[in-house]
Amino acid sequence: MSTASAEALSFLAAARVARLATADGAGRPHVVPVCFALGQEARRLYIALDRKPKQVSPERLRRVRNIQVNPRVALVADRYSEDWSELGWAMVEGTASLLEDPAERAVALDLLRGKYPQYREMALDDRPLIAVDVERVRTWGTLA
Amino acid sequence: MSTASAEALSFLAAARVARLATADGAGRPHVVPVCFALGQEARRLYIALDRKPKQVSPERLRRVRNIQVNPRVALVADRYSEDWSELGWAMVEGTASLLEDPAERAVALDLLRGKYPQYREMALDDRPLIAVDVERVRTWGTLA
Repeated sequence: MSTASAEALSFLAAARVARLATADGAGRPHVVPVCFALGQEARRLYIALDRKPKQVSPERLRRVRNIQVNPRVALVADRYSEDWSELGWAMVEGTASLLEDPAERAVALDLLRGKYPQYREMALDDRPLIAVDVERVRTWGTLA
Repeated sequence: MSTASAEALSFLAAARVARLATADGAGRPHVVPVCFALGQEARRLYIALDRKPKQVSPERLRRVRNIQVNPRVALVADRYSEDWSELGWAMVEGTASLLEDPAERAVALDLLRGKYPQYREMALDDRPLIAVDVERVRTWGTLA
């Protein structure tokens, strides 16, 4: 179980998009928007690799190559508003891996399809899933 | 001048918020939302450190400490929509530094205050500004 506040977990659970930062072996960062679902008790979160950027196989995606050489990741969900008193974010720090276990893959796909109807029609069974062990959650600003 | 497409630069220029990824000396990523302004010909972009998270001095912020040990950064602006055919992002890769030159600081503050009325009332003159040399812009999806 993570040590994040209930408010932070609720903010993360409700976020439709977050941004996943990885870094390669030389510490060069990479960051892309991702859809994600929180697992039970927010111990882990799950990210599907559904999209096909420029015909690159999922294993060759930068985020995947980075995770294979450096599993440390950070993910932030935030709210932007022109009223800056409403700004807030929650950042997860954790360790990522490609999810291989069939039973946990099935759970993760259920969570992702529960949160995102868009995934229900997609063939994701043979595509990689990223699991992130949630180690720390930092927050700033207004999350409520 | 960067090699980014006019469409990518227009998307970045219009984005009200982006997410800045840095990494520390051990390659551990960090990512937070930031407001930013593009400089002339998109050679550089500028980020103000205006907020005071938990009384930490700006120099001690993780993003600043990371830049001091590892200047490589990535910044992504994106659009989320429940219609996933409308998703798109533009990611800048570059090298960051704290902006010291008074003349360029003045230019950067003008750009930031031009884009964000919220900055016009804030005392930013004695606060650090981050400059990012834009080295590469990658895009995905629908930017128009």
